[in-house]
Amino acid sequence: MNQLETDDQPGFVERQVRRHRHGESAIAADNVGQEWPVALVYNGISHAVMMCTPRDLEAFAVGFSLTEGIVERGSDIHDIEVYFRDDGVALPHAEVHLQVVQQAFAALKDKRRALAGRTGCGVCGIESIDLLDLQPERVPDTGFLNRLAPDAIERAARELPAHQRLTKLTGGLHAAAWCDETGAVRHAFEDVGRHNALDKLIGQLILAREDTTQGFVFLSSRASYELVRKSARVGVPMIATISAPTSLAIAIAKQASLRLVSFARENSFVEYDVE
Amino acid sequence: MNQLETDDQPGFVERQVRRHRHGESAIAADNVGQEWPVALVYNGISHAVMMCTPRDLEAFAVGFSLTEGIVERGSDIHDIEVYFRDDGVALPHAEVHLQVVQQAFAALKDKRRALAGRTGCGVCGIESIDLLDLQPERVPDTGFLNRLAPDAIERAARELPAHQRLTKLTGGLHAAAWCDETGAVRHAFEDVGRHNALDKLIGQLILAREDTTQGFVFLSSRASYELVRKSARVGVPMIATISAPTSLAIAIAKQASLRLVSFARENSFVEYDVE
Repeated sequence: MNQLETDDQPGFVERQVRRHRHGESAIAADNVGQEWPVALVYNGISHAVMMCTPRDLEAFAVGFSLTEGIVERGSDIHDIEVYFRDDGVALPHAEVHLQVVQQAFAALKDKRRALAGRTGCGVCGIESIDLLDLQPERVPDTGFLNRLAPDAIERAARELPAHQRLTKLTGGLHAAAWCDETGAVRHAFEDVGRHNALDKLIGQLILAREDTTQGFVFLSSRASYELVRKSARVGVPMIATISAPTSLAIAIAKQASLRLVSFARENSFVEYDVE
Repeated sequence: MNQLETDDQPGFVERQVRRHRHGESAIAADNVGQEWPVALVYNGISHAVMMCTPRDLEAFAVGFSLTEGIVERGSDIHDIEVYFRDDGVALPHAEVHLQVVQQAFAALKDKRRALAGRTGCGVCGIESIDLLDLQPERVPDTGFLNRLAPDAIERAARELPAHQRLTKLTGGLHAAAWCDETGAVRHAFEDVGRHNALDKLIGQLILAREDTTQGFVFLSSRASYELVRKSARVGVPMIATISAPTSLAIAIAKQASLRLVSFARENSFVEYDVE
């Protein structure tokens, strides 16, 4: 690459807009969330491109690698380098180069070869139902849910907005937060993609050597299949989301013994698939 | 497959929930949006699996095939069969079998072989930045925007909720609507995925032989890269979204000469990247 910046991008850019209101209009400046293609390159081989807000990409890469099963543990990643490219010619993008243990890299190559041998590559990367991961890991019972304060979910809902700086600026990002047993927000990440925000959060927990079984994830979004599957992969005991869950999110959470609550607001929440 | 139902699913399922409010709780029944794995099978070969609400899957398959560039036009698809499988054993899923013209199928196989030859398959199906489609088609100027009524966007914002039946039931789906030059909603589709809702809409327009350059798309979601790229592919002249756009959505819309307005509400909207 020509130019290598390694500092985080701001997460938003200013754009000229025209605001229309009741038939009147005026030019103004507005902030817009950054959406960049981010390539994940393992041991020199580009593996995936995600549409991502170009901040916290080291944490993102660690989280993605774990929640997608590319590595088993954080220590399987030896090195990470993040490169931003915004030269005004091509659309801005980023690359994250990871060095992973030989075993993980061999497994990744095998997986790719197996897919290629079967019939190659689909648009979403999974070309048949058989390859879909509908058997999530069972979350270990560490007693965290028993220690959860009765008002922890409401507290997290109350505290989250203070951590949504980019959302306040742009009106359009998702947040994923890590909360302790009292509902206090310990970490929060924002991204144009809710799954990216979650990967950043999980990656940061791994980088900081925090225990992913001793806290819960609070998401500003809906709960869909992939968010539950990613969380189950690292043993997260509970997910709370501000908006609705899908049928598959509920089913996968049940299989994983992961507690799922949605419509989590300051005074109320809904718990799914109770007996 | 064992069992073949060909009727649409309802789009939602009832689940037992426990509602918590101000420390009190009660069991209730609630509706949840259906999220099913849906495999798209071209000429007998499974190509992709999308997480989708299992309604309007014929329209979905037509839209997806067009907006992902698998076929050039609707007439390249000779036959579509939709199979639902919900036998209570495996998680419910669906398969859509398409018969496409030999040329499109050969191109799809070539594309897959090329990807496999390079290094195989990524999680998102695109394994390097070079393969990303950042050069959208330029939308033809048919004069539609000149004929657009001054209050068309506000009218569409006002009318959309009446078409969001599943959202009303579940609180958690996205809608994509097709609006004419007065802002009247002509078609609307809902899905757990905003890109799926758009693919269903575009597919229905193609099935009904409507002109995709003579109307605009109104989306209940944010505007991201993929929604703009999919719309540009079939010549849609304008997208209006209820929530925010991303930086890449704005950039791609500009390249495509597609008008993008966001925060589209009953009395106001914001137009991006004006001079």
